[in-house]
Amino acid sequence: MSLKYLHTMVRVTDIDASLDFYCNKLGLEEVHRIDAETGRFTLVFLSAPGDPHAQIELTHNWDPKTYEGGRNFGHLAYQVDDIYAACQRLIDGGVTIHRPPRDGRMAFVRSPDEISVELLQVGDALPPKEPWASMPNVGMW
Amino acid sequence: MSLKYLHTMVRVTDIDASLDFYCNKLGLEEVHRIDAETGRFTLVFLSAPGDPHAQIELTHNWDPKTYEGGRNFGHLAYQVDDIYAACQRLIDGGVTIHRPPRDGRMAFVRSPDEISVELLQVGDALPPKEPWASMPNVGMW
Repeated sequence: MSLKYLHTMVRVTDIDASLDFYCNKLGLEEVHRIDAETGRFTLVFLSAPGDPHAQIELTHNWDPKTYEGGRNFGHLAYQVDDIYAACQRLIDGGVTIHRPPRDGRMAFVRSPDEISVELLQVGDALPPKEPWASMPNVGMW
Repeated sequence: MSLKYLHTMVRVTDIDASLDFYCNKLGLEEVHRIDAETGRFTLVFLSAPGDPHAQIELTHNWDPKTYEGGRNFGHLAYQVDDIYAACQRLIDGGVTIHRPPRDGRMAFVRSPDEISVELLQVGDALPPKEPWASMPNVGMW
């Protein structure tokens, strides 16, 4: 039997804030969008550039709702080629680095709806470097 | 800047029950496992056969915990080549089909830790067929 991963769906309260986080700050690209007038929701499919087959689906219900987190879901993980540059771009965009890459290898941030996102350095860890090496954890991730 | 999707992490209370669901019943394969004695946790990486670059990471903490769900996470979605066969295999394994594929196109089930999993028929919907066409929804998904 054939089986293929399509996407992980997350619900978002503010589609503009979510696209700003996932696209402008994290680096994903919008690949497809569906506006469902009757159901009053919008679906936006995002993927890493050049990797359209593994996507995040953002579901935005037009009628305001808030979405709490739960512990059965952990995080979305992405590999980056320079974890310091990726974290700097997030910081410049006002995103809190909950788990800074003190080890040159791993960092955690959260989306506007508290979805935890892990960043992992491709290959070997980068050499430890300030300000990252002495940057404290912030809250949970 | 390069960015690549690695995995979606979910926490599991019972690793055997989870592997039975994700592998035996859903059809994923174990590709990698890490037993961390010091941290007292096990990580198991699963992927669809032939698609090792999009994975689920199961995190199992050895000290018992329970993990509630939250609404900011929606579901994991997989494409299947025969949605009726996929659902039959899940039913045969004792899994509740929360949203049966009445339309020959879409179904939802839940993992032992209540992670919602969407199954989508590849290509066009299959022709409606009993017992699926008249099977009622069960709870939430």
